[in-house]
Amino acid sequence: MGRQIGSAPGKALKMLGREAVIAIGGGVGPMAGVALHAGIIEATRTDRGDQSHLRVIHHSDSPAIPDRSAYLALPAAERRRRLSPGTAMAGVFAAMARALAAGEPAVGGIPCNTFHVPEIFDEFQAEMAADRNPIRVLDMLEETLGLLRERLAGQTGLNIGVLATGGTRRSGVYDRLLERAGQRISQVDEADQPRLHDVIYNNKWGLKAVSPPSVRAVAAAEDFAGQLIGRGAAALILGCTELPLALPGTLFRGVPLIDPVRALARALVREAAPGKLKALEP
Amino acid sequence: MGRQIGSAPGKALKMLGREAVIAIGGGVGPMAGVALHAGIIEATRTDRGDQSHLRVIHHSDSPAIPDRSAYLALPAAERRRRLSPGTAMAGVFAAMARALAAGEPAVGGIPCNTFHVPEIFDEFQAEMAADRNPIRVLDMLEETLGLLRERLAGQTGLNIGVLATGGTRRSGVYDRLLERAGQRISQVDEADQPRLHDVIYNNKWGLKAVSPPSVRAVAAAEDFAGQLIGRGAAALILGCTELPLALPGTLFRGVPLIDPVRALARALVREAAPGKLKALEP
Repeated sequence: MGRQIGSAPGKALKMLGREAVIAIGGGVGPMAGVALHAGIIEATRTDRGDQSHLRVIHHSDSPAIPDRSAYLALPAAERRRRLSPGTAMAGVFAAMARALAAGEPAVGGIPCNTFHVPEIFDEFQAEMAADRNPIRVLDMLEETLGLLRERLAGQTGLNIGVLATGGTRRSGVYDRLLERAGQRISQVDEADQPRLHDVIYNNKWGLKAVSPPSVRAVAAAEDFAGQLIGRGAAALILGCTELPLALPGTLFRGVPLIDPVRALARALVREAAPGKLKALEP
Repeated sequence: MGRQIGSAPGKALKMLGREAVIAIGGGVGPMAGVALHAGIIEATRTDRGDQSHLRVIHHSDSPAIPDRSAYLALPAAERRRRLSPGTAMAGVFAAMARALAAGEPAVGGIPCNTFHVPEIFDEFQAEMAADRNPIRVLDMLEETLGLLRERLAGQTGLNIGVLATGGTRRSGVYDRLLERAGQRISQVDEADQPRLHDVIYNNKWGLKAVSPPSVRAVAAAEDFAGQLIGRGAAALILGCTELPLALPGTLFRGVPLIDPVRALARALVREAAPGKLKALEP
């Protein structure tokens, strides 16, 4: 096992050009990791052969990472007794770091909105720092804001719809993010939030349970998106990585859909090899 | 970076049950790796939460692995002076092995038909043995034969259509495989093979270059599939991992489509955690 990937011809040259490895902290959920991986390939400008794609390492360790929403729903005292999803994910990045060649630059991302709630993401970042993990992890929510800005050509003071899990909603991450961006947040009625959560989590017909998505999940997601558009949303953030399964594409009834996983895919390509990022086609 | 994934609660228990890690040798091409990864998730029977999915590590090192068809097209003397795709892929598996915890069982697969031609696969296996790489790699072509057998309910003496790259065709791997299985192989006319190769490789409209697939590529693939069905094919093997992009699903005009990547995905789940393999739904 002594041979390093870096010994392959062409690799030395690529590394002189500072093309970084992309590391996907997957398994949260596993299909979101696959969507991020596909998004990276699709966002990469190549000479149309396999060899000009970027190096991607993708560890999908679902069994090791507790459910993020369930963790956030615990009382703080109880959370301290449990394994944090942030600590578990730092272990996944430790495994990915072992796979890198010495000194190889790497940039990482985690395709889960709820993971980016401070109670989890801060713990993850603290563990990464303690481990001296060399992989520089991007913040998917910051990148989502960047994509939103790009899609709205910099307009502010708008009403932005956000569809998310209960955990992400209660955390207020998108409220703070949009306030900082000078936008107003619009969400489904509080009373409807459990129904939206069910679109993702219902173990008979929800998006995590049934692939391709059930008619019921798609109808419910479209209904919620339609409600927010009806109240004047200028764009919709799909604030849970399962939602694009029910609301695919980049527009819904003429309104831009902002997929955080797509934002993260583009950001990873931009950071790994800026010259290889395809232009945005909304 | 001292923490091991294996320290997460639940993992020890899983390993007692001998659930193996799945290792994808990706990048050949990168989207085939994504299709294999998605296929593994889809073939896994879970309790419908993320945590019951299998651990997958997926290294997509396209820049390091030379084009398989181009390599096979070289004269043997010239091939010996070049880096073999088999040697390069053994380097990818060495990196994946470094990411495993000590003693963690792992089973691997490589989603590329041309990679399984003996000139490449034998070299890969020799390098893996020399490296004492602990990952047990399955043979995608053997698994394809297994899926074909299952889909045909054991019938033999049939005419089986194979659509493949020029490199895979010239190698004769599918001829030998089907002969051993007691089936007859049917391929496109020799004169049409360059056109079939173009469906995959054309750098303006081919399946490796354009995603989602171009109308031209889909029409040509359907035309070739229709020709083989017209000549009595009882099933069609999509012998290049890009072809399912143009011929999706499990049937074409009522004839079973055998996707080697799907066969490999099912085999990896079967080997990693037999109790978690979903029943085949043709």
